Amino acid sequence: MAAPSSSSTRLRFMERSVRERAPPLLTDLYQFTMAYAYWRAGRHREPAVFELFFRDAPFGGGFSLFAGLTDCLLFLRHFHFTEEDVDFLRSVMPPHTDPAFFQFLQSLDCSGVTLRSVPEGSVVFARVPLMEVAGPLAVVQLLETSLLCLVNYASLVCSNAARFRLAAGPRRKLLEMGLRRAQGPDGGLSASRYTHIGGFDLTSNVQAGFLFGIPVAGTMAHSYVTSFSSLEEVWPQTLVALNGDGDPVDVISLTKGWLRRLCELLGAEPGKIREGELAAFLSYAIAYPQNFLPVIDSYSVGCSGLLNFCAVALTLCELGYRPTGVRLDSGDLCRQSLEVRRVFTLCREHFSVPAFDSLVIVGTNNISEQSMAELNRKENEINTVGVGTHLVTCTKQPSLGCVYKLVEVRGRPRMKISEDPEKSTVPGRKSVYRLLDSEGHPFLDLVSLAAEPPPQAGLPLSCFPVGCAAAAAATSVTAAQVVCLRQEVFANGQVTQPLDSTVETRATVQSSIQTLHERHKRLQEPESYTVALSESLHKLVTEIQRGSGGSSFLLAN
Amino acid sequence: MAAPSSSSTRLRFMERSVRERAPPLLTDLYQFTMAYAYWRAGRHREPAVFELFFRDAPFGGGFSLFAGLTDCLLFLRHFHFTEEDVDFLRSVMPPHTDPAFFQFLQSLDCSGVTLRSVPEGSVVFARVPLMEVAGPLAVVQLLETSLLCLVNYASLVCSNAARFRLAAGPRRKLLEMGLRRAQGPDGGLSASRYTHIGGFDLTSNVQAGFLFGIPVAGTMAHSYVTSFSSLEEVWPQTLVALNGDGDPVDVISLTKGWLRRLCELLGAEPGKIREGELAAFLSYAIAYPQNFLPVIDSYSVGCSGLLNFCAVALTLCELGYRPTGVRLDSGDLCRQSLEVRRVFTLCREHFSVPAFDSLVIVGTNNISEQSMAELNRKENEINTVGVGTHLVTCTKQPSLGCVYKLVEVRGRPRMKISEDPEKSTVPGRKSVYRLLDSEGHPFLDLVSLAAEPPPQAGLPLSCFPVGCAAAAAATSVTAAQVVCLRQEVFANGQVTQPLDSTVETRATVQSSIQTLHERHKRLQEPESYTVALSESLHKLVTEIQRGSGGSSFLLAN
Repeated sequence: MAAPSSSSTRLRFMERSVRERAPPLLTDLYQFTMAYAYWRAGRHREPAVFELFFRDAPFGGGFSLFAGLTDCLLFLRHFHFTEEDVDFLRSVMPPHTDPAFFQFLQSLDCSGVTLRSVPEGSVVFARVPLMEVAGPLAVVQLLETSLLCLVNYASLVCSNAARFRLAAGPRRKLLEMGLRRAQGPDGGLSASRYTHIGGFDLTSNVQAGFLFGIPVAGTMAHSYVTSFSSLEEVWPQTLVALNGDGDPVDVISLTKGWLRRLCELLGAEPGKIREGELAAFLSYAIAYPQNFLPVIDSYSVGCSGLLNFCAVALTLCELGYRPTGVRLDSGDLCRQSLEVRRVFTLCREHFSVPAFDSLVIVGTNNISEQSMAELNRKENEINTVGVGTHLVTCTKQPSLGCVYKLVEVRGRPRMKISEDPEKSTVPGRKSVYRLLDSEGHPFLDLVSLAAEPPPQAGLPLSCFPVGCAAAAAATSVTAAQVVCLRQEVFANGQVTQPLDSTVETRATVQSSIQTLHERHKRLQEPESYTVALSESLHKLVTEIQRGSGGSSFLLAN
Repeated sequence: MAAPSSSSTRLRFMERSVRERAPPLLTDLYQFTMAYAYWRAGRHREPAVFELFFRDAPFGGGFSLFAGLTDCLLFLRHFHFTEEDVDFLRSVMPPHTDPAFFQFLQSLDCSGVTLRSVPEGSVVFARVPLMEVAGPLAVVQLLETSLLCLVNYASLVCSNAARFRLAAGPRRKLLEMGLRRAQGPDGGLSASRYTHIGGFDLTSNVQAGFLFGIPVAGTMAHSYVTSFSSLEEVWPQTLVALNGDGDPVDVISLTKGWLRRLCELLGAEPGKIREGELAAFLSYAIAYPQNFLPVIDSYSVGCSGLLNFCAVALTLCELGYRPTGVRLDSGDLCRQSLEVRRVFTLCREHFSVPAFDSLVIVGTNNISEQSMAELNRKENEINTVGVGTHLVTCTKQPSLGCVYKLVEVRGRPRMKISEDPEKSTVPGRKSVYRLLDSEGHPFLDLVSLAAEPPPQAGLPLSCFPVGCAAAAAATSVTAAQVVCLRQEVFANGQVTQPLDSTVETRATVQSSIQTLHERHKRLQEPESYTVALSESLHKLVTEIQRGSGGSSFLLAN
């Protein structure tokens, strides 16, 4: 296999990855038991429509991002059961299951399935049907768990990343580094992919760089620093100046000289400086004279790490190289970053090293959305923030809760009328429109019946907001612009739109969030965005609810 | 590929799965940058020892389970970089990286690595080194992220399952059904595997059944029920009695008859019974006369679902079949289960159907550890509980936080002396012993230097408990029995112990938890288990801490 340098090679990789990670047996058993019951009743080919949506925006926010579509499409394209799959199913289904059903299973594919979806990377809202999956009843039922599994975490972690990005502001660089804390290997890989799409700049995950072209970053762990104990371990002990005459320079002497001058300048105690740490930094700088960015808190930032960094960085500067910066991984990052920057500035002035002006400070210490927001409020000098656990596990809400509900069979609307009104569904095949105001901000998503004409910009429209107390009351709105939110992306067994690359989806996310009004995108107590049913759809819901009692089938015989 | 019917085929599947999910590029970039710096300094072959441990037991509990070892071993056995991996690394490492380093990478494997580990499925405690990874410095450093990634979630979700099991009591059947809410496909598969190991009986995940032999379960979703609207959709409308003369019986008339008698018996209103729901139940029962377990809350349990179930179940009984039970998926499960059981008992007595005595009630409604514990306290008739989101995402604490720390290089102990005392490490290569009291309960894990003789049962022993306020004070303990906690499981590129099957590991979990004293395993405010350093190890720590200041390398030149 070749390295995925081109987008078509990358696509092949992703396709293989979806096949391997999400084989069609990776689903709930009840999909098969239901499929058999449909098949047994001769209903398996009845045209049916399911919708995928979530009931509440994640993290107490006002919006979510929608992600995972590409994987869903690759899944649909390859959906079929192998002989071995069917053998296994035969062993778990009840013994009297008709053998012809297993032949039917083996003949299945998604050639009869049509998928309409909002674009990957869009801002979306609770209770809006994001995907519409139409096709033979047994097949579209069988797709449920896989589609939910591919969309749920992708959308959740992408939304989480977008919130971290909003909390961090647009300028700071964000590094994802959660691989070791994710739900195993693939959880980690999905996290790297979808947090990049959600607004992170870099990942520590090399495989994510390999597969998705995400820029990778990372320099050293504390173990590297603690693996050194004395300067004798530094080897080679020389470095050739960048544009020099090629003679190797003894960097140990040079660095010791800088360290003495630094101790004088800063009034530091030479006795507190860790020799092993200096050895680690020097050894690293000799290996990477143009990429020197050590972690400086293995012992004490103020008494040792910062001094050792500056001494090695000054040596590099003297030899014509540009050191990169430092990483802080514990304690009060804001306070430390100010002190670090103060020392950098002092060095720059005192030793006339302009390179010290552009040194980068990376902060990584169990950053949560809240500490990111605090970071943005407090004075600090941190240029890049690395986030792991809270980002990939979505501590604040570790699952999105997308659901997949039946809305139509044989052209007839279907509705679940639960005793828990939250769990009732909206029947019928639908269209979804986003209404924008005169400034281009979306202000309402309109869910109407597919057969209705689209709303017209500039004309007042009566509709029924969902999920609020005044649910029964109609409201009148006028859109400056109307966008049809979903498009057909899969039909006749084929993906019908070009698949977006990671870069393109990332751009969709940013532009989609940018159009959002501040009141909907603020992280704390956002104003809830209005999702409304058209008059016709509202009428249908009311009719079905009204007609739901009074069945008299028991009287007839 | 064959279905994994034998344990050896299953192992091959798992091996391939680890290779595909956790290729050696699935790691943090800094592992490679550090490896290069070691290589450049000629230190890459220095013998080094890392330890894997966690700092706090998860979920505020007193213990954790250790899981993921099998995957780690399969990972180590196959660890090597392909040409394509190395090509990609060349493209992300700084341009002046010595080309010979990439040849070195391509030659790497784990033939020089030795792994000592606690057994998979054991009860373990915070700050005890669970795995010791010894080998060439560059190689054992490169393994960090992969081992953490394979152990962290496996151990976390296994521990979470064990807590649900403790909360549920030993008798109730537990069903895992979290696939759609996990971190993507592999998160879902890992969840099914390790929650079964942790104490769950069943999974809804078919692929987990296929790969790991876990019993699978599931019958129908609400969509199945709402897909029916009238009895005309039931087909075939007949069923042959189990031991009858083979004449098909009209089950619609039969069921209607039962429904009328039920309405009379229970004083129910026929007009409130949903015809579509009855059609769905009947159709399902015709397909699965011996496996009839519908979800009965699509509309109203009391007014429709329960009556429809009983009518169809009575029809099945009349024809000699045994209905299985019902599923409740919303509302107050305890209260509903009592009402459902009351009606079952009434039917059993009134209609003389003994099969109604053994009907199963399954409850599935966003169950958390807390609601599971409540379920155990409140009166109810639920036999099987299905758990999804809270189980697989570990809402209460979505990451375990295992770390991997360097403790020895070239035979010399290494220690991180952080300003944050929590983050300091314990130096040196160690042995770990579990001390049991006279009743066989473990009461202390002793961490000593590898060179020390093991503690003797029956002899008093002085040691230093870690992580408590009186950290400096020695304590004397006498064990009735001493168990060496870790054993060598990988050496010379080979797995040196037979790999446990899922069934065996599940048994280890249960026996390991059973030996635990009640005060350590209770879910709320457990008494903390003592982990202690031997006198020699404590002395080493103190010496290194004392010797950590006063470096005078700057004076020499």
